[in-house]
Amino acid sequence: MTEQLEFTNAQRAHVLTGALPYIRRYRGQIVVVKYGGNAMVSPELRSQVMEDIVLLWLVGVRVVLVHGGGPEISDMMNRLGKQPEFVDGLRVTDRETVDIVQMVLCGKVNKTLVSLLEMKGGKAMGISGMDGRLIRCRQKDPSLGYVGSIEEVSIQPVLDLLEKGYIPVISTLGCDDEGNAYNINGDTAAACIAGALGAQRLILMTDIAGVLRDRNDPASLIPELTIDEAVKLFEEKIIAGGMIPKVECCMDAVIRGVDSAIIMDGRVPHSILMELLTDEGAGTLVRKGTET
Amino acid sequence: MTEQLEFTNAQRAHVLTGALPYIRRYRGQIVVVKYGGNAMVSPELRSQVMEDIVLLWLVGVRVVLVHGGGPEISDMMNRLGKQPEFVDGLRVTDRETVDIVQMVLCGKVNKTLVSLLEMKGGKAMGISGMDGRLIRCRQKDPSLGYVGSIEEVSIQPVLDLLEKGYIPVISTLGCDDEGNAYNINGDTAAACIAGALGAQRLILMTDIAGVLRDRNDPASLIPELTIDEAVKLFEEKIIAGGMIPKVECCMDAVIRGVDSAIIMDGRVPHSILMELLTDEGAGTLVRKGTET
Amino acid sequence: MTEQLEFTNAQRAHVLTGALPYIRRYRGQIVVVKYGGNAMVSPELRSQVMEDIVLLWLVGVRVVLVHGGGPEISDMMNRLGKQPEFVDGLRVTDRETVDIVQMVLCGKVNKTLVSLLEMKGGKAMGISGMDGRLIRCRQKDPSLGYVGSIEEVSIQPVLDLLEKGYIPVISTLGCDDEGNAYNINGDTAAACIAGALGAQRLILMTDIAGVLRDRNDPASLIPELTIDEAVKLFEEKIIAGGMIPKVECCMDAVIRGVDSAIIMDGRVPHSILMELLTDEGAGTLVRKGTET
Amino acid sequence: MTEQLEFTNAQRAHVLTGALPYIRRYRGQIVVVKYGGNAMVSPELRSQVMEDIVLLWLVGVRVVLVHGGGPEISDMMNRLGKQPEFVDGLRVTDRETVDIVQMVLCGKVNKTLVSLLEMKGGKAMGISGMDGRLIRCRQKDPSLGYVGSIEEVSIQPVLDLLEKGYIPVISTLGCDDEGNAYNINGDTAAACIAGALGAQRLILMTDIAGVLRDRNDPASLIPELTIDEAVKLFEEKIIAGGMIPKVECCMDAVIRGVDSAIIMDGRVPHSILMELLTDEGAGTLVRKGTET
Amino acid sequence: MTEQLEFTNAQRAHVLTGALPYIRRYRGQIVVVKYGGNAMVSPELRSQVMEDIVLLWLVGVRVVLVHGGGPEISDMMNRLGKQPEFVDGLRVTDRETVDIVQMVLCGKVNKTLVSLLEMKGGKAMGISGMDGRLIRCRQKDPSLGYVGSIEEVSIQPVLDLLEKGYIPVISTLGCDDEGNAYNINGDTAAACIAGALGAQRLILMTDIAGVLRDRNDPASLIPELTIDEAVKLFEEKIIAGGMIPKVECCMDAVIRGVDSAIIMDGRVPHSILMELLTDEGAGTLVRKGTET
Amino acid sequence: MTEQLEFTNAQRAHVLTGALPYIRRYRGQIVVVKYGGNAMVSPELRSQVMEDIVLLWLVGVRVVLVHGGGPEISDMMNRLGKQPEFVDGLRVTDRETVDIVQMVLCGKVNKTLVSLLEMKGGKAMGISGMDGRLIRCRQKDPSLGYVGSIEEVSIQPVLDLLEKGYIPVISTLGCDDEGNAYNINGDTAAACIAGALGAQRLILMTDIAGVLRDRNDPASLIPELTIDEAVKLFEEKIIAGGMIPKVECCMDAVIRGVDSAIIMDGRVPHSILMELLTDEGAGTLVRKGTET
Repeated sequence: MTEQLEFTNAQRAHVLTGALPYIRRYRGQIVVVKYGGNAMVSPELRSQVMEDIVLLWLVGVRVVLVHGGGPEISDMMNRLGKQPEFVDGLRVTDRETVDIVQMVLCGKVNKTLVSLLEMKGGKAMGISGMDGRLIRCRQKDPSLGYVGSIEEVSIQPVLDLLEKGYIPVISTLGCDDEGNAYNINGDTAAACIAGALGAQRLILMTDIAGVLRDRNDPASLIPELTIDEAVKLFEEKIIAGGMIPKVECCMDAVIRGVDSAIIMDGRVPHSILMELLTDEGAGTLVRKGTET
Repeated sequence: MTEQLEFTNAQRAHVLTGALPYIRRYRGQIVVVKYGGNAMVSPELRSQVMEDIVLLWLVGVRVVLVHGGGPEISDMMNRLGKQPEFVDGLRVTDRETVDIVQMVLCGKVNKTLVSLLEMKGGKAMGISGMDGRLIRCRQKDPSLGYVGSIEEVSIQPVLDLLEKGYIPVISTLGCDDEGNAYNINGDTAAACIAGALGAQRLILMTDIAGVLRDRNDPASLIPELTIDEAVKLFEEKIIAGGMIPKVECCMDAVIRGVDSAIIMDGRVPHSILMELLTDEGAGTLVRKGTET
Repeated sequence: MTEQLEFTNAQRAHVLTGALPYIRRYRGQIVVVKYGGNAMVSPELRSQVMEDIVLLWLVGVRVVLVHGGGPEISDMMNRLGKQPEFVDGLRVTDRETVDIVQMVLCGKVNKTLVSLLEMKGGKAMGISGMDGRLIRCRQKDPSLGYVGSIEEVSIQPVLDLLEKGYIPVISTLGCDDEGNAYNINGDTAAACIAGALGAQRLILMTDIAGVLRDRNDPASLIPELTIDEAVKLFEEKIIAGGMIPKVECCMDAVIRGVDSAIIMDGRVPHSILMELLTDEGAGTLVRKGTET
Repeated sequence: MTEQLEFTNAQRAHVLTGALPYIRRYRGQIVVVKYGGNAMVSPELRSQVMEDIVLLWLVGVRVVLVHGGGPEISDMMNRLGKQPEFVDGLRVTDRETVDIVQMVLCGKVNKTLVSLLEMKGGKAMGISGMDGRLIRCRQKDPSLGYVGSIEEVSIQPVLDLLEKGYIPVISTLGCDDEGNAYNINGDTAAACIAGALGAQRLILMTDIAGVLRDRNDPASLIPELTIDEAVKLFEEKIIAGGMIPKVECCMDAVIRGVDSAIIMDGRVPHSILMELLTDEGAGTLVRKGTET
Repeated sequence: MTEQLEFTNAQRAHVLTGALPYIRRYRGQIVVVKYGGNAMVSPELRSQVMEDIVLLWLVGVRVVLVHGGGPEISDMMNRLGKQPEFVDGLRVTDRETVDIVQMVLCGKVNKTLVSLLEMKGGKAMGISGMDGRLIRCRQKDPSLGYVGSIEEVSIQPVLDLLEKGYIPVISTLGCDDEGNAYNINGDTAAACIAGALGAQRLILMTDIAGVLRDRNDPASLIPELTIDEAVKLFEEKIIAGGMIPKVECCMDAVIRGVDSAIIMDGRVPHSILMELLTDEGAGTLVRKGTET
Repeated sequence: MTEQLEFTNAQRAHVLTGALPYIRRYRGQIVVVKYGGNAMVSPELRSQVMEDIVLLWLVGVRVVLVHGGGPEISDMMNRLGKQPEFVDGLRVTDRETVDIVQMVLCGKVNKTLVSLLEMKGGKAMGISGMDGRLIRCRQKDPSLGYVGSIEEVSIQPVLDLLEKGYIPVISTLGCDDEGNAYNINGDTAAACIAGALGAQRLILMTDIAGVLRDRNDPASLIPELTIDEAVKLFEEKIIAGGMIPKVECCMDAVIRGVDSAIIMDGRVPHSILMELLTDEGAGTLVRKGTET
C-alpha cells in the first residue's frame, strides 16, 4: 500500500469517467453483499467496505447488506462463561446461546454497521430475519438446539426498505411459527434473500482468494465457473474443504435466480468496488451457463 | 381476575359494537406507547400489551412502540461482571456499558417485542435511534460517559415504516455526529418522537397509578390535568419524587404538539385498550388547556 | 335477551382481543351482504346490522351492502292503488310499477340505509345498478314486463367506491341498452356482484335458520355444504321450497368465484358479526369443495 | 326550428374547429349545472341538455349536475292523497312529505338522469346530499317541518367521483346530525356546492330569459352584471319577484368563490353548449367585479 | 369552397352533439398521423390539419404526429449547392446531406409544426428518432450512404410524452450504435411507431384519393380493404406504381398490431376530422380481416 | 496532458471513494449547464463535457443542458450567402436568419448533443424554447429583427423531462404570442431556466479563466464573489469588457433563486466534474452573500 494516492484533478476525472460504463451496467440493479470474515474484523478494511457500499448506493445500485458475526458471538459467550461448541461447523445453540446470538448480531454488529454506513453518507436501516416475518425457519436438528433451517423468505420488508431508499442491513436470525428465534447460516440466508430479490449479483466476502485449481498456487485462480463446471470440479475434488459450502452457496443462489454469485477475497482493499466498477475482479464468479 | 371470561356471542357482539365510537375516534391517528416497567416484565401483562397494540393496529390506529430495558441492561452488566452505577437516576455509561446497552436494547428487547407482535398477528419492524439517523444526540455530561442528550429527531424513518404498514418498535439509543452510540432516556425519547410525529396520544406505561392528590389514597387519583394545573401541583409539592420526571415528560410532549399524554398504570391488564377503546382510563392524562 | 350486558373493562378487553384472529382473517377482504327480510324490517335488528357493517368496515373489511325492499314496494303500490301481482314468485312489473320500484329502492330504502350507516360512523355511498352502467340486463319474459335478467356486471363503479373508502350500498335495478330500468332479483344481483368482485364471502340474510336436514327439527341444521353435497340434497328433496333459490344463489356465487356463501339467519341479533368475528355462525355455508 | 340541419362534412369540420378556443378555455374546469324547470320537463329539451353535458364531459370539462324536481314531488303527493302546501315559496314538509321528496328526487329523477346521461355516452353516478355526509343541515323553521338550512358542505364525495371520471348527479337533500332527511332548496345547494368546488361556472337553468331592464321588453336583457351592479338593480327594483332569489343565488355563489354564475334560459335548445362553446349566451351572467 | 360557413348557434350545437358518438369511440385511443405532401405544403391545409389534431387532442384522443419533409430538404440542398439524387425513390445521402436532413427536419419542420400546434391551443413537444434512443437503425445500402433501415423502436420516450399530456411531434431520423444519424423513410417509421404503440389508427396523409379500382375513375375508390383483399389487388396489378409502398406500409402497420391504417387524401380540407368524427372518410382503409 | 493515466485498481477505488462527500452533496440537486465556446468546438473537450454530464446524471444529479451555437449559425449563414451582422454583440436577425438559427440550433447542434450524451450512456431529450411553450418572448428591438427578450419561462416541460429521467437539452429559441420564433441570448435563457427551476448551480462554460483582479495575471483569479462584492468590482472597473455580461448573468441567476452560479473555464478538461466532485474548481463562483 505504498502506492501514490495523491492525484491531480485531471487524473481524478479520468478515473471517475472511466467508471461510467460500469455504473451504467449496475444502476438500478440489486446487489446482495454477504459480509463477514477479515473484511469485517479489520477496521481499515471495514471502513473501505462501507465506503464501497455507500458509493454503489449513491450511483443507484440497490445494495443489501447481510452480515454474520461468528467471532463476536464466541467472544461474548466466553465473556458470559459459556463454551462455544460446534458440530460439523454448526454452533450448538441452546436457549441461552440463541439469546446471545440475537443480542450480538441484532444489537451489536447490526447497529454498528448501520452507524458506519451513515457516517459514510448512506441511509441505512438495520433489521433481522425476525422483523416483518422476513425469515421463517424450523429446527434443523434437535441435537443442535436453536439452529434453524430456512422454510420461507418473505421478501416484502426488504423491498419496502429499498423502495424507501434505505440500504437494508440484515442480521441472519429467523423465527419459527411459535416466535422462537433461531441462529441460521449467514451464507445460506444471503443466497435465499438474493434469490427472492432476483438480485443481479451475490457477493460472498471471504478470507480466501477464490477457487484455485492448485490450492498451493495463487496464480491458478479460476475467475469464472458455470454450474456444470463447478459440478465437475466437485467430482475432481478440486473444490474441497471450506471451499465446498461457499461454492454450493453460490450455486444455490444462481439456481434461485441470481444472475451471478462471486466468492470474493475480502482481504483485498475495496474489492467490492473493483469487482463492480472496474474490469478486474478478485475471486471466482459462478453463473448459470455459458449461454447466458 | 376471577371474573367470568366466557361470554355468549350476543354478549361479545355487544362489547364489540360498543367499541365503535372509540375506534372511530382513533382510526388513522398516531399513538406512541412508551413501554417499560412491570408491563414489560410480567409475561402475562406483556402478552396483553402486545394484544392491545395489535388490536389497535388492526382497527387502523398507527401505533409506535418505544421501549427501554433498564432491568435487562443491569442484569447483563452483572453477568458480565460490571457493577451498574447511577448518578441522579442516570446510568453511568462507559464505552463497554454503552455496548451492552446497545446489545440488550436493540438485540434482545427489541427483537423479542417484534417477534411477540408478529405472533399476535401484527406486522412489526424493529429499529433504533441509530437507524436512518433517527435520533442525533450529544454527550449530556462528561462524567456520565455515553449518556446522550437529544439534539434532533429526524422522523422520516418512522413515517416510512408507518406508511408501509408496520408497527415501528424503537430502541432508544442515539448517535452523535461521529457515529458514537449513546444511551438516552426512554421517556424523553418517546416524548420527542411523539412530538415530531404530531401524535394524538403519548402513553407512558408506568408502575404507578397516576398522580394522586394524597399519595396514600388511591382514590385521590387526578384523572386529567392541564399544563397550568400541573405547574400548580408542582408548586404545591403534590407532584413529587419519581412522579416529577413522568409529569414533566408528558408536559414536554404536549408542548411539542402531542394532543394529550397519559401516565398510565401498566400494572392494570389491558390498560391501553381500556384507555383508548372504553370510557374508562387508568392514570392521569395531561393536555394543553381546558380550551382544547 | 335477558342476558347480562354490563361488563367490566377487563371483560371488554378480553372480548376485544378475542376477536384478533378473526379480524386478521377478514382484514382487506371483500364481503358482500345481501340485506333483506326481518333484519331489514325490525328497527332493532336493522340498527344491529348497521353496527356490524360499520364495525367490519372500521377493522378493514371491505363491505358491500346489496339491498332489496319487497315489502316497501308492495306497500307503496297499495298506497298508489296498484295491486301487487306475482307469477312464480316474480313481481309482474309494468312501466308504472318499475317506476315505483325505482323510487322505493333507490330513493327510500337506499338513502335510509346510507344515512343509518353514517350515523353509526361509517362512510357510505348509495348507488344502483343503473349508475356507472353497473348492471346491464334484458327483459326476462314479456309477460312479466320490466323484470330483468342480468346480462353483464361492470364492477368498476363498486371498485371505485371501495378504493375511495366508501361502503357501497346498492339498489338492485338494472338497465337495458335503451336505458329502460328493470326490477331484478336481489339475491341474484348480489351473487353476480360478489362474483365479479371475487369476494371472500357472500352473506344472504334470510328469515330462516339455514338448511335443515329435518325441517321440523332446528337441531338438524347443516352448518356447511360443498356444492356436491348440495346437489345431493337437492336430489334427496331435503332442499325444497323457498330454500331452493337461496341455495342455488349461494352455489351460483361460489361458481362465479366467491370463496364461500352463507344463508344466514337474519333474525339472530348481530348475526354478521358473530359469523365473521367469532367461531360460531348462524346458518348454512356453501363452499366449492372439501379440498379448498 | 325549421333551420337546415343537414351539413356537408366541410361544414361540420368548420363548426367543430370553431369550438376549439372555447374548449381550451373550459377544459379541466368545473362547471356546476343546476337543472330544473322546462328544460327538465320537455323530453326534447332534456335530451339536448344531456347531450350538452356529455359533450362537455367528453372534451374535458368536469360537469356536476345538481337537480331539483318540484313538479314530480307535487305530482306524487297528489297521487298519494296529500295536498302540497307552500309558505313563502317553501314547501311545508312533514315526515311523510320528506319521505316522498326523498323517493322522488333520489329514486325517480336522479336515476332517470343518470340513465339518460349514460345513454348519451357519459359515465354518471347519482348521489344525494345524504351520501358521504355531503350536505349537513338543520331545521330552517319548525313550522315548515323538514325543510333544511345548509350548515356545511363536505365536498369530498363529489371530488372523489370527479377524480374517478364520473359526472356526479346530485339530489338536493341533506341530513342533520341525527340522520333525519331534509328537503333543501336546489338553487342554494347548487351555489354552496359550486362554491365548495371553486367552480369556474355555475349555470342556473330557469324558465326566464334572464334579467330584463324592462320586463316587458325581451330586448332589454342585461347579459352581464357585477355584484355591485346587481345590488344597484335590487335597489332600483328592476330585479324583482321571482328573479330576486335567482340573482341572490348567483351572487352567493360568486361570493363563495365561483368565477361566474349565470341565470340561463333553459327553454332555448342547447343553451349550455351555446353558452360555453360559442360567443353567444342566453341569460344574465353575474361576476365579482369588472377588475376580474 | 363556396359553401355557407355561417351558422346559427342551434346549427352549431347540432353539429357538435352529432360528433358525440365518434368522440366516444376514439377517446383515449392512440392515433398516429404521418404528415406530408400537399397537406403540409399548402398553408391553408396545414392550418386545418393542425386544427384537426388539436381538436382530437382536446377531446381525449392521444395523437402522435410523424412528419417528413422531402421538398424542404431538396430546397435546402439546392440553396447549399448540392444536387439531390435519388435511386429507386431513395435519396442518396452523404454525410453532408444527412446533416442537412437533420437540420431541416428537426430544426425547421419539426419546430414549425410544434409552434403551429401550440398556436391552435395544443401542448406539443418535438423530438426525433435520435432522442431517448427512439429509433435505432443500420445502414440500408452502402451505395445510398446514410439511409437507415429501422432495427428497433424503443417507444418509451413517446409514451413518456403522451403520459405527460403532450402531442409528440416526431422527425424521422434514426441513430446507429455509433451515434451516426440516418435518414429513414417517414411512412415506414410511422408504421413502426404506430405498431409499437399498439395504435388504434395510422393515418397516412397522401396526395392521392386512395386505392382506385380503375385509376381513371375517381368513383371507383375502394373505401376498405382486408389484408387478403389487398394481396389479391397486388396480384391483379390494380395496386401499382406509387400506390404500392403506401398500401404495403398500411399492411405492415396492421400486421404490427395497429387496428387499422388509412391512405388518406390530404388534399381534402379537414380530412382527419372527417375521417374520425363523421361517418364519411376520404381514402382507403386497411384492416386485418373481416372477422375483426 | 502528459500525466500518468494508468492506475491500479486500488488507486481507482481511492479516487472513486474520495468523490463520496461531493456526490452526497449534489445528489438530487438540479444543475444547469450553459454550454458553448471552445468546450463545444473541440471534439476532445466536447467528449469530456458529455462524459462529465452523464456521470453526474448517473450519480443522481439532475442536469439540464442549455446550449447556444453562434459559430455554427454564422458558418451556415456564410454557406447560404448571408453576411452575419452584429449590433452591440447581438446578431441582426431577419426572417431568413431566424430560420437558419432555428435549423442550426434545434436541428444540428441539439440533436448532435443528444446523440453524444446517449453514446456516453445517458438518456437525453432535445427540445427548444418553442416546445411546450417553454420560453415566451417579445421583440427586443425592431432594428434587430427576430431577437427576442424573454417574457416568461413556463418550466413545466423541463420538469416533465427531469421527472421522466431524461437529461433535457435545450436550444435557446423562444416564441411570441403569434408563434414567431426568436433568437434569444443563451446565457440569459440559462439563467432564467435555472432560476425557474430553483437550481442548485448554474455553470456558464466560457473561454476565460474567470474574474481576474489583474487581467494580465492568471494568479489573480477571484474564486468566489458575493453579489455585493461583484457590484463593487463593477464600480472599480475590474469587471469589464466581455466579463460584464457573464457576471451580470450569474448575478441575475442568483437573484432569481439559484444557489450559486459559476463562470467556468471550459478550456480546462473535465472542468464540470472537477468543480462539482472535487474540492478544486476552475473559475469564479457568484453567490448571494456570506450569510448563506
